[in-house]
Amino acid sequence: MALTDSPASPTAFRAGHSVAAVTDAAAVVERPLGLDAVAITGGFWHERQEANRAASIPDGLRQLHEAGNLRNFEIAAGRATGEAVGPVFADSDVYKWLEAAAWEYARHPDEELLARQLEITELVAAAQEEDGYLDTVVRLREGERYRDPARNHEHYCAGHLFQAAVAQSRCTGRDDLLRVAVRLADHLVRTFGPGLRDDVDGHPVVEMGLVELYRQTGEASYLALAEHFVAARGAHVLERWGGNPTYLSDRVPVREARSVEGHAVRAVYLAAGAADVATERADAGLLAALARQYAAMAESKQYLTGGLGARWEGEAFGDPYELPADRAYAETCAAIGGVQWAWRMLLATGEARYADQIERMLFNGFLPGVSLRGAEYFYVNPLQLRHDAHADDDRSPAHGRRGWFDCACCPPNIMRTLSSLAAYVATTAEGVLRIHQFVEGVVRVGEAEIAVETRYPWHGSVRVRVVRAGAEPVRLAVRVPAWAEGASLDGRPVPAGAYAAPERELRAGDTVVLELPLVPRLARPHPRVDAVRGCVALERGPLVYALEAPDQPDGVVVDDLRIDTRAALADRVEEGLLGGIATIVAEGVDSGTGARVPLTAIPYFAWANRGPREMRVWIPEAS
Amino acid sequence: MALTDSPASPTAFRAGHSVAAVTDAAAVVERPLGLDAVAITGGFWHERQEANRAASIPDGLRQLHEAGNLRNFEIAAGRATGEAVGPVFADSDVYKWLEAAAWEYARHPDEELLARQLEITELVAAAQEEDGYLDTVVRLREGERYRDPARNHEHYCAGHLFQAAVAQSRCTGRDDLLRVAVRLADHLVRTFGPGLRDDVDGHPVVEMGLVELYRQTGEASYLALAEHFVAARGAHVLERWGGNPTYLSDRVPVREARSVEGHAVRAVYLAAGAADVATERADAGLLAALARQYAAMAESKQYLTGGLGARWEGEAFGDPYELPADRAYAETCAAIGGVQWAWRMLLATGEARYADQIERMLFNGFLPGVSLRGAEYFYVNPLQLRHDAHADDDRSPAHGRRGWFDCACCPPNIMRTLSSLAAYVATTAEGVLRIHQFVEGVVRVGEAEIAVETRYPWHGSVRVRVVRAGAEPVRLAVRVPAWAEGASLDGRPVPAGAYAAPERELRAGDTVVLELPLVPRLARPHPRVDAVRGCVALERGPLVYALEAPDQPDGVVVDDLRIDTRAALADRVEEGLLGGIATIVAEGVDSGTGARVPLTAIPYFAWANRGPREMRVWIPEAS
Repeated sequence: MALTDSPASPTAFRAGHSVAAVTDAAAVVERPLGLDAVAITGGFWHERQEANRAASIPDGLRQLHEAGNLRNFEIAAGRATGEAVGPVFADSDVYKWLEAAAWEYARHPDEELLARQLEITELVAAAQEEDGYLDTVVRLREGERYRDPARNHEHYCAGHLFQAAVAQSRCTGRDDLLRVAVRLADHLVRTFGPGLRDDVDGHPVVEMGLVELYRQTGEASYLALAEHFVAARGAHVLERWGGNPTYLSDRVPVREARSVEGHAVRAVYLAAGAADVATERADAGLLAALARQYAAMAESKQYLTGGLGARWEGEAFGDPYELPADRAYAETCAAIGGVQWAWRMLLATGEARYADQIERMLFNGFLPGVSLRGAEYFYVNPLQLRHDAHADDDRSPAHGRRGWFDCACCPPNIMRTLSSLAAYVATTAEGVLRIHQFVEGVVRVGEAEIAVETRYPWHGSVRVRVVRAGAEPVRLAVRVPAWAEGASLDGRPVPAGAYAAPERELRAGDTVVLELPLVPRLARPHPRVDAVRGCVALERGPLVYALEAPDQPDGVVVDDLRIDTRAALADRVEEGLLGGIATIVAEGVDSGTGARVPLTAIPYFAWANRGPREMRVWIPEAS
Repeated sequence: MALTDSPASPTAFRAGHSVAAVTDAAAVVERPLGLDAVAITGGFWHERQEANRAASIPDGLRQLHEAGNLRNFEIAAGRATGEAVGPVFADSDVYKWLEAAAWEYARHPDEELLARQLEITELVAAAQEEDGYLDTVVRLREGERYRDPARNHEHYCAGHLFQAAVAQSRCTGRDDLLRVAVRLADHLVRTFGPGLRDDVDGHPVVEMGLVELYRQTGEASYLALAEHFVAARGAHVLERWGGNPTYLSDRVPVREARSVEGHAVRAVYLAAGAADVATERADAGLLAALARQYAAMAESKQYLTGGLGARWEGEAFGDPYELPADRAYAETCAAIGGVQWAWRMLLATGEARYADQIERMLFNGFLPGVSLRGAEYFYVNPLQLRHDAHADDDRSPAHGRRGWFDCACCPPNIMRTLSSLAAYVATTAEGVLRIHQFVEGVVRVGEAEIAVETRYPWHGSVRVRVVRAGAEPVRLAVRVPAWAEGASLDGRPVPAGAYAAPERELRAGDTVVLELPLVPRLARPHPRVDAVRGCVALERGPLVYALEAPDQPDGVVVDDLRIDTRAALADRVEEGLLGGIATIVAEGVDSGTGARVPLTAIPYFAWANRGPREMRVWIPEAS
């Protein structure tokens, strides 16, 4: 397709500053509000976003220089000489960083960061080949294009480029990267699909990328190609390249699959892309298949933390109910993909359970992947670190969080998620503003401006105040999480696991107060989960808790602690601990000595900020 | 060193038909009796050996032809053209088959099998290079020798060649393969060691091979090189090749290690080779280090089945007490390496616990690796197969046993272990015949001949009858396994976990009867083993039991069964089931329906002989 030449020209079909900016034709219940409509201005997630801005993003750029990802582009652009370094998908980390920088510009316009973004964009453009093909590592190292679709990640890199370009176009008004993306997408359209080359890529993400690019540009061939990639997959098409069908999400067609399997990130990225296709095509059958798969995953293949992927071997989902705490893989990227999938399912269905899922995954599956400071990362997120655990891999949690990885997919993925987080907060559904996630911030919809005031997740009050209304009164609905039994809206009890609406229309100056009961509670595992039989976990609000060694009495070994589940649980907000958290105190027994001891639990996301120490989420019950 | 030229010439220093044929100078308590002294003539292990002879070994030869391992030698010998196929260590599978065939010849002299063995030996010799170097895959595929010691397995292949050559020399009287081995060993001696190339191989086994070759030939430089390889390891020497120190047993020197870690087969092969060095060098410090490591492994890194290796990722030992049932790796080769290590520790120390370990690993860690028929194998041996388990790998137990593997290390390893099994039965210690394993068979020592009659492990009587005595009466001791509380010898109670001797000297015609109480019993896991908390396992005699779906009431899901541990356990020998076994029947509850149901357990080794069906060793207790 053709774009105008001006760097800042608007595209014909420009979407809002949203994630999954569904078109008017899409079959969705909810329409997303993007970063042009929602701002997180304080509180919990604002702190995390500020750490992302101040530490993660700048440090990430340094790491991309040091690891050689950017140099690969310089070599491909003819500006340097040498061999490509890093994994075959090294380009994608640059694109994820560019995407983070783009969202960040909408959140916190920083011309310096924009300049860096545009410099790198110019470098990426310079590395692109005449016909639009772009992959520095494959070009420099492998020579031949699409020589091994099962392993070479060329579409995967393209997909991340598309997402970055769309974010840049949406949030900075610059189409520099979008032009690169369009040239590459046009090349893909000329190369792959029915009657052309019939391969799919070993690692999905291009599906989401193509649909977002379609949404940004209006170019229907991008949506068609995404639809083709989703439909073609599952027929063992990668076996010709020696690819393992299960690992590559290529054993069963998306439309027929009953659960998720294989490499967790691949599986959820594919599902999210398929959900994009299903909504834009109004394909109810495909959407129903995805809903079924999501439910099976949530039932039997997801950790309490929302973490996805039970196996290190193949970074994969396990069998149903195979959910070991100690060897949980729960890759940070898989939680991010899970959020992306759940977000698209939420838009499509309006069902509160998907917003519950997003909350669970953000707080407990995603956030543990980054330190409180912001520039140290976990690749895997187990629910236990044992006594005498040994680190034998750069991903080992026993190392503690690390500044970067040989395979550095997670850190820039965290950055782009944090900088775009406001896009997951609210939607509109037939004139109703629906608030899905509780953040301190501002929502603008039409002429109305709504302020949300809350100290969530430490305190359970969420005040929604209409600062300005338009001609029409504001119609509002807020999510009452499934865990929030006993919640009230303006003093009136409201059912958990659904959206609650005030009984009145809201005008300027009106305030609605949602009260969520943040009391500590016990979670018990499904009886089929062998790995944590006889254990309970502690939760409070949206947070999963963990016992970490530094908070326990001196001399005890966390692995020997048992919890007395008949005793009461106490909680306390501790401003001075780990940046300010609420702790839970339970009564327990040291099974080594038999002594009764207090057990102090911290939010799981905050573990390993005092070095890698013994930790466990699931605590055996005292007998 | 020089060997005589005649194919059948005896070597100067010929050892008995033993495994780990320690020299007179070795610091050992026990001296092994080999296949020239011990014959298994009936009963349990004889049946397994007959299946090995009739099915495994001939089928293995066919598989080695089909998979191309033998063709690699033909190409290297200039008798065929083409490229090498299979993993870089493909030669080793040929050597293990040759070793199996050699031991088998001592057990059951079959001239046809000897002819095949000598044909392949001739082919191997033809593929050897002028200076003694021999590795077909590295030569044909990699070109350069020792280009990547961390990965290329050249010493590993050599070690297996040495073991095969020693077995052939010991059991057939032919030195054909020994000549090849000596040329290769001399090349290694000229190439590696102090003042020469200071690498070690990524996969230990050459240490055991070199010491056995020293024992067979008397060539001291082989022992010296083995000693060097053991001493050099553990200083991150393979990091220069990008090798992971933990995975490769290269993080901590053997003499300093406190436990086992990394790739399980590598770790136990290294330990077994180090034990060979320790005994031949009378190195008490090294032996003490190995005893400490063995104890740590048995305490915290070994499954109830004796299985070794908790992780698929890296085929590795986990952290202490990380012992998942479902994702147990417990590679068949690791159990074999465990037996080899325990055997050497038994010779060195005479401690009954090592013979207990051998029994546990043989029956429960090793034997599940092969079908009752004999030509289908498990590479990994988990203690649970879940409902709805999915096979995503040729090693997946959900496939059931398979005829061969892409990485086919286990099948020929099973063959050589079964054919040499009689070598692990008995030893002499200062004139006392010690019987460690209970088999129907004959033991000849000096002028004496002893017959052992037993239907173990189904029945607990072991009758030891002196068929013929020499001038001196026979002095005897029999192992009383640690599980055998209540055992008696000639009606006299004897303590479990030790050796028991009759109170009299034995002369021709005398009989001693050991009675072992084969009553079903419950095993409980260590409280640190999270994976099976709240579960018990069933054992009877040396056997670990499992619930397998075909034996449970129709319609129940094994994962939902619970055991009532207050109810009595019953056992019954069932001649018609799975080739004749004893079952255990317990009372249980179907937690799905709440109904009380009988639970019928079979010996774990016999599982998956009726297809891959749901199975579990550890059974949750009914609450």
